[in-house]
Amino acid sequence: MPFNYLPPLLQESDKKIILLVMDGLGGLPDKASGQTELEAAQTPNMDRLAAEGCLGQTIPVRPGITPGSGPAHLALFGYDPLTYDIGRGALSATGVGMDFKPGDVAARGNFCSLDKEGVITDRRAGRIPNEVALPLVEKLQGIEIPGVEVMVRHVKEYRFTIVMRGEGLSAEIEDTDPQQTGVPPLPAKAAAPEAERSAELFNHWIAAAWEVLADEPKANGVTLRGFATDPELPKYQQVYGLNPACVAGYPMYRGVARLVGMEIIEFSGESPEDEFKAVAKAWKDFDFFFVHVKKTDSKGEDGDFEGKAKIIESVDQALPVLLDLKPDVLMITGDHSTPSQLRSHSWHPVPFLLWAPATGRPDTQTQFGERACTLGGLGTFPATDTMPLALAHAERLIKYGA
Amino acid sequence: MPFNYLPPLLQESDKKIILLVMDGLGGLPDKASGQTELEAAQTPNMDRLAAEGCLGQTIPVRPGITPGSGPAHLALFGYDPLTYDIGRGALSATGVGMDFKPGDVAARGNFCSLDKEGVITDRRAGRIPNEVALPLVEKLQGIEIPGVEVMVRHVKEYRFTIVMRGEGLSAEIEDTDPQQTGVPPLPAKAAAPEAERSAELFNHWIAAAWEVLADEPKANGVTLRGFATDPELPKYQQVYGLNPACVAGYPMYRGVARLVGMEIIEFSGESPEDEFKAVAKAWKDFDFFFVHVKKTDSKGEDGDFEGKAKIIESVDQALPVLLDLKPDVLMITGDHSTPSQLRSHSWHPVPFLLWAPATGRPDTQTQFGERACTLGGLGTFPATDTMPLALAHAERLIKYGA
Repeated sequence: MPFNYLPPLLQESDKKIILLVMDGLGGLPDKASGQTELEAAQTPNMDRLAAEGCLGQTIPVRPGITPGSGPAHLALFGYDPLTYDIGRGALSATGVGMDFKPGDVAARGNFCSLDKEGVITDRRAGRIPNEVALPLVEKLQGIEIPGVEVMVRHVKEYRFTIVMRGEGLSAEIEDTDPQQTGVPPLPAKAAAPEAERSAELFNHWIAAAWEVLADEPKANGVTLRGFATDPELPKYQQVYGLNPACVAGYPMYRGVARLVGMEIIEFSGESPEDEFKAVAKAWKDFDFFFVHVKKTDSKGEDGDFEGKAKIIESVDQALPVLLDLKPDVLMITGDHSTPSQLRSHSWHPVPFLLWAPATGRPDTQTQFGERACTLGGLGTFPATDTMPLALAHAERLIKYGA
Repeated sequence: MPFNYLPPLLQESDKKIILLVMDGLGGLPDKASGQTELEAAQTPNMDRLAAEGCLGQTIPVRPGITPGSGPAHLALFGYDPLTYDIGRGALSATGVGMDFKPGDVAARGNFCSLDKEGVITDRRAGRIPNEVALPLVEKLQGIEIPGVEVMVRHVKEYRFTIVMRGEGLSAEIEDTDPQQTGVPPLPAKAAAPEAERSAELFNHWIAAAWEVLADEPKANGVTLRGFATDPELPKYQQVYGLNPACVAGYPMYRGVARLVGMEIIEFSGESPEDEFKAVAKAWKDFDFFFVHVKKTDSKGEDGDFEGKAKIIESVDQALPVLLDLKPDVLMITGDHSTPSQLRSHSWHPVPFLLWAPATGRPDTQTQFGERACTLGGLGTFPATDTMPLALAHAERLIKYGA
C-alpha cells in the first residue's frame, strides 16, 4: 500500500478536492517568443489562482524518465509506477467499463488486414470507422471457447478489448502484434509455464476470430497485446479515506481511475466546460474529483503549439464553473510534459498549482507557467506527493505523533 | 543507524555548530498585510545572516504530514520519525532527567479527580499547582511493588512520570486514561501476551496509589499513558562524531535531546537571552548546541500572531550573544509550522537559514521569511538532511570515494 503511514492519520472532513489534469501540460519555450504553450496562453483565472495559491513542479516518475499516460497518472494518484506496474489490457478493459475481475485476463485487440498468405498488410485494417467495426465486434462476441467465458467490447475504430474469465488463467503471454507489416501475426506465446493453457485458449479464440472475419474486405484478422490481469491496487477509499470520482472522456484515463477506486461520471460533450459541468452535477456525491483534459496532449503530439495554447485557454475560460463550486483544494497540473516542439511525451518537470483558500501559503509567483513554477513555494517534488498534500489542505489528516 | 554512510567519513574538527530551533516557526500570511509572523517581525540580525548565508525550507516528516514535536525534532536531528518511533513515556522520563535505562518501562501520569463510584470528574485534578502536587508525588514515591523498582518524578502541576525497572518488563500496555470524564479510569491492559505481568504490576501500583491518595480533596486518583521503553537510539557521538549539548526549558525537548545523546545544560531564566547565555557558558565543552525556543509555538497555538512575531523579535535581539561566540555553523529554523491562523501545528514547510561564514554559499535572498526561503539556495529538503549539511560546513566530513 502506498503511504502506509497515512491510514492511521485519516479523519473525516466535508472538504472537497479537485485534481484537474491537463494531459501533457508541460512544454518548452517557443524559440521566437521564449514562452511555452502555458506561458503564452491567456489564463487570467489560473494566474489569479497562482497569485493566491502556491506553485511548484512535479517529477512524474523519476528525473529523466518520460512516462506513458498510465504510469504518469498512477504517480499523480500516489502509486509509484515503478512499484505498481499495470498492463495495458487492464487499463483498456476497465477504461471501457468492462466487468473486469481479479483473475480475469484482458488484452487490447486490433483488427488488421491479412493477405491470402496470412501476412499483415495493414496493422489497423485501414482504420475502419466505428460503424464498420461494431458489427464485427458483434461477430467476435459470438465466439465461444469451451472452459472459459470470453467478453469482447469495441473501443474505437479498429480497436477492441477482450477479457477472458476462467480458472487458473495467466497473463504471462506475449503480444501477437508483430509491430510490422509483411509478416504474419505471432501466435499467443506463453512467457511462463503457468500461462501455457491460457495462451492456447487465446490462440483458439484468435483462430475462431479469423474464421468469422474471413470474408471481410479489410478487417479479416486480429492481433492482441498487453495481456494483463487486474493489478488489484489498493483503492482511494482505503489509502486516502476518500470517495473519489473521475470525469474523463478517454477510456484509458477512466481505466486508471477505476483501478484506484474512482467512480466514473458519465457526461455528454467533450469540451472542458462539459467536463466541469459534469463535476458540478456530481458535486454533492463525492469528496474528490479527478478531471482529465486530453487535448493538450493531443495538440502537443501534433506539434501544434498554438492549438495546445488554445486548449489551455479553453480550460481557463471554463474554470469559473469549477470555482463556483467553492472547492477547498484545487490542484491544476499535468500528468507529464508534451512539448509541441518534440511532438511527444517528455521527461521535463510538470507545472503544478495548488490553491487552497483556507490553508494555502501563497508564494512569490503570480502567473501559472513553467518558469514561475520553478520559483514556486512547493519546490520540485515527486508527483506521488500530490495526494498527501491535497489531504493535508483538505484537513483530512491528523497530527503524526505528539 | 541513520546515515550509515557517514561514520567512515567523519573527521575531527574544532569547528562548532549551533542549531537554533524556534518551535513552530513556520506561519501563514496575515490576510491584511500579506506577511507571516516571521516576515512581519523586525529581525535585523537574522536578515543579515540570511543575506550572508543561505535559505531553504524543510519538510519535517513527509509532504502533507503535520508532525508532533517529538517526531519533528527527531527529524531535525536526522532520525526519520517513520523509522524511529518513540513513546511519550520515554520522552517524559528522559525529559525530566530520570535514570531511564534500556528495559525500563516509563509512562506519563496524571493526577485526576474521582467521585465515590470511582468515576473521573476531572482528568487533571483541577490542575493542582506544583506545591499541592509535590507532596502527593512523595506519597507515590513511597509505594513499593514486590519484584520491581519503581521511580516517580513530578513534571508540572498535575503531571508526573513513572518508571518501572525489573526483569522481563514490556511496554505493550494500553493507556488507562479514558480521555473523558464520567467513566472510571481503565485498567492497565496488556496489548501483547508478553506484557501481561507488566500490566498487572502497573495495576498493583495504581491500586496502591489510589489508596495513599484516598483522602485527597482533588487528586485522589491517577491515570497512566504512553507506556514506553528506551528506544535505544544511536547517539550523536556514533552517528555524527559530535559531543552535543541541549539548551531547552521544556522537558519534552530535553527528553528527545537526551535520547540522541545530548548533554542537558541547566540554566535559569526562560528568555532566549537566558538560553543563549547558557550556550556561552558551556561553549568550550561541546561542539554542537541544540537550542530550543518554545514560545513561538505556544503563541501560534494561542492564535496570537503579534505575540509570535514578538517572540521571534526577542530571539533576534538576543542573537548577538550567540554570534559573539563565533560559531562556525549557525542554523536557524523551526521543527514544524504553527501558523497562528490555524492555532495548531501544520504540515507547511519550515523556513531554514544556514550561516557558515567560511564555507557558506550565499544565495539571492536577503531576508529571513517563508517566501524568501522558497527562493533560497538550499531549496526544499527533508529536515533529516539538516545534520549532514551542518557536518559538512563544520568541515567534519571527508571526501566520499576518490
